[in-house]
Amino acid sequence: MDPANSSPANSNPAYNDPRYQAGWHKLAEVDGEQGQRVIDSLQGIAPDMARYIIEFGFGDIYSRPGLDLRSREIATVAALTALGHAQPQLRVHIHGALNVGVTPTEVIETIMQMALYAGFPAALNALFSCREVFAERGVSPA
Amino acid sequence: MDPANSSPANSNPAYNDPRYQAGWHKLAEVDGEQGQRVIDSLQGIAPDMARYIIEFGFGDIYSRPGLDLRSREIATVAALTALGHAQPQLRVHIHGALNVGVTPTEVIETIMQMALYAGFPAALNALFSCREVFAERGVSPA
Amino acid sequence: MDPANSSPANSNPAYNDPRYQAGWHKLAEVDGEQGQRVIDSLQGIAPDMARYIIEFGFGDIYSRPGLDLRSREIATVAALTALGHAQPQLRVHIHGALNVGVTPTEVIETIMQMALYAGFPAALNALFSCREVFAERGVSPA
Amino acid sequence: MDPANSSPANSNPAYNDPRYQAGWHKLAEVDGEQGQRVIDSLQGIAPDMARYIIEFGFGDIYSRPGLDLRSREIATVAALTALGHAQPQLRVHIHGALNVGVTPTEVIETIMQMALYAGFPAALNALFSCREVFAERGVSPA
Amino acid sequence: MDPANSSPANSNPAYNDPRYQAGWHKLAEVDGEQGQRVIDSLQGIAPDMARYIIEFGFGDIYSRPGLDLRSREIATVAALTALGHAQPQLRVHIHGALNVGVTPTEVIETIMQMALYAGFPAALNALFSCREVFAERGVSPA
Amino acid sequence: MDPANSSPANSNPAYNDPRYQAGWHKLAEVDGEQGQRVIDSLQGIAPDMARYIIEFGFGDIYSRPGLDLRSREIATVAALTALGHAQPQLRVHIHGALNVGVTPTEVIETIMQMALYAGFPAALNALFSCREVFAERGVSPA
Repeated sequence: MDPANSSPANSNPAYNDPRYQAGWHKLAEVDGEQGQRVIDSLQGIAPDMARYIIEFGFGDIYSRPGLDLRSREIATVAALTALGHAQPQLRVHIHGALNVGVTPTEVIETIMQMALYAGFPAALNALFSCREVFAERGVSPA
Repeated sequence: MDPANSSPANSNPAYNDPRYQAGWHKLAEVDGEQGQRVIDSLQGIAPDMARYIIEFGFGDIYSRPGLDLRSREIATVAALTALGHAQPQLRVHIHGALNVGVTPTEVIETIMQMALYAGFPAALNALFSCREVFAERGVSPA
Repeated sequence: MDPANSSPANSNPAYNDPRYQAGWHKLAEVDGEQGQRVIDSLQGIAPDMARYIIEFGFGDIYSRPGLDLRSREIATVAALTALGHAQPQLRVHIHGALNVGVTPTEVIETIMQMALYAGFPAALNALFSCREVFAERGVSPA
Repeated sequence: MDPANSSPANSNPAYNDPRYQAGWHKLAEVDGEQGQRVIDSLQGIAPDMARYIIEFGFGDIYSRPGLDLRSREIATVAALTALGHAQPQLRVHIHGALNVGVTPTEVIETIMQMALYAGFPAALNALFSCREVFAERGVSPA
Repeated sequence: MDPANSSPANSNPAYNDPRYQAGWHKLAEVDGEQGQRVIDSLQGIAPDMARYIIEFGFGDIYSRPGLDLRSREIATVAALTALGHAQPQLRVHIHGALNVGVTPTEVIETIMQMALYAGFPAALNALFSCREVFAERGVSPA
Repeated sequence: MDPANSSPANSNPAYNDPRYQAGWHKLAEVDGEQGQRVIDSLQGIAPDMARYIIEFGFGDIYSRPGLDLRSREIATVAALTALGHAQPQLRVHIHGALNVGVTPTEVIETIMQMALYAGFPAALNALFSCREVFAERGVSPA
């Protein structure tokens, strides 16, 4: 997933921008193939949105010092569970959490805890998304 | 904040229940004085709600293995920021996060990241709650 | 609170409309003085909004057969608790619930149950609104 | 649906706990086969979550005196409609409402009223979930 | 789509009511065939809900002077994107926006801007709904 | 409000960045003094958040062609009304809407329309914020 070889990078005039490059590498590190798929899926409708996710989301925010990537992904899984309307993004970030070293058990604990703050339905729907991702990756909680 | 000496414990028939005791000690560890205040504030209107926060929230959920308290508080700060309607609880858990070793910078990074998932207004309002808690405790980000 | 004597009715060309009259009487029955205050507060900024609350909210919806007023107010207290951003309206409808025969205990039980569906913060903030209304009316749960 | 014969009860060390037993019987009374299905669906991913739904949700909250089961289900249908992101749980509780004696018309009236508090889209999507449940059970509003 | 020839109008005692007629014509102007489909879909479950959408939604609100239809549809697309739980209604109103002269680019810009206020997931899910509607109509942003 | 003379610009290493400069001028054009106040209020707690609002919010998004500023502000007022938890930001953007030529009546119509999509409480609370802003500026709907 090198930015020089992938379609959004090639077609994007911002390609040589350091924010774009930093964001692209961070996105690849965190979300891997799933992140690439989100970026690709935007090319036909709103390619600049893909660029903002890379530049602002991953180049600016996820690249900041002060909070390690494991904690960032735990925070994101918690928030997407609590919001309730973001199942596709939650699945991407459950992949992301596992990619950066959060354990399957930690993902499940984070989601279960959300029952306290956002209610059981939000936590249940997130657990069912989690089960799909775990099945796809062949992992399971300890 | 020993359960034997504090009002909710004394007036509560569940006092000797091990879930209640475990929850009480976990609540004291995490939320300290601010947690006590929430419990006290419920005595006149819904004392069983205080009991459920202690038993289910802290005895069942926060006492689970599999996710350390630092990560649990980062998840909670993320979720309460994203929900947007829970400023009093967010302030309690910013205290809680700092109590269990999350740094002021990590709290701010967690909140800032929420701009990506819940929008800038939710993140801004959480930062203003954060500023209040930091002022009260005399801490500041590095 | 006869519509003929109150400002919104007098200044409103819809006054003789049967939907408006039915709505006005239903609003008076349910929300009493607090409902009147909401209607009055809209006169300087959006008087037609007051008219729609009366005509559509109370003339069309609350006047429908098929669900008694007690159940309607329990449903409304539940929803406003769960939404989290509607404390002023929740206070009006806690008054409304008590006005149509919901007991203080039933109001509190309805709110506490919302911890399951919308999380503890939403339920806690609603309980604190409830405490204010109960204090104002001098009532308390059994 | 006796707890002694069903898988979650058998595999669960909490089986003899009175809270668990009370919760299990209340869940069976309210949500019946649909509740069983939710509990079963959690066994592979987060079995303790199933236990908390039984113990806290149904053993603690739904078993409380002070609000009858019909009113509790009306409150839940209202809240799940208003939240908007909980269609699977809404369908379970439309079954639950009908199981404890709420009429089909009362379910529809509760949902329609939510247009006032959470907007028409939330109410419409809930009505479409309602139509599915009614079709499955072969019931219809009067 | 004349109200005299279409099922909801024929079966509805409110058919000759001027609010109903005004609303019906406004709904036809804005949402066209998609609006008709929503109205039809409610006939078997809650026909009065269809009537309220026509009378209150389109007869009262969308028929008001003071804000042109283009601006009204931009506001609606923005709100449905931000709410996150209303994809079917968002698709209807993307059709509606295009019907009243909002350009495909303006629809996309409105949705993209929501990333600032409701977060990237809400904006992304709305863009994917947008892509479906654009494909159905054979339009694309400039 | 020239970026060369105001504190965030001076203390900010990004000052000469064209995105920052474009964003700063756009923020000044749209939100004026109220926008400046938001930026200033972040200096003690999260100055980079202020920079992101300027660079991403106003430099990237609000500076895009394809949707005029009047429409952008109508979309923002609609979304902040619908979200319900963002009253401070809504007040800033009611100022912003009026600054770029949206009339007071158009602001009110946009907010009232949100009753359809987010419910009456969200619309009412926004109208009360609107009344404050109108009073502060000495304007009123026609």
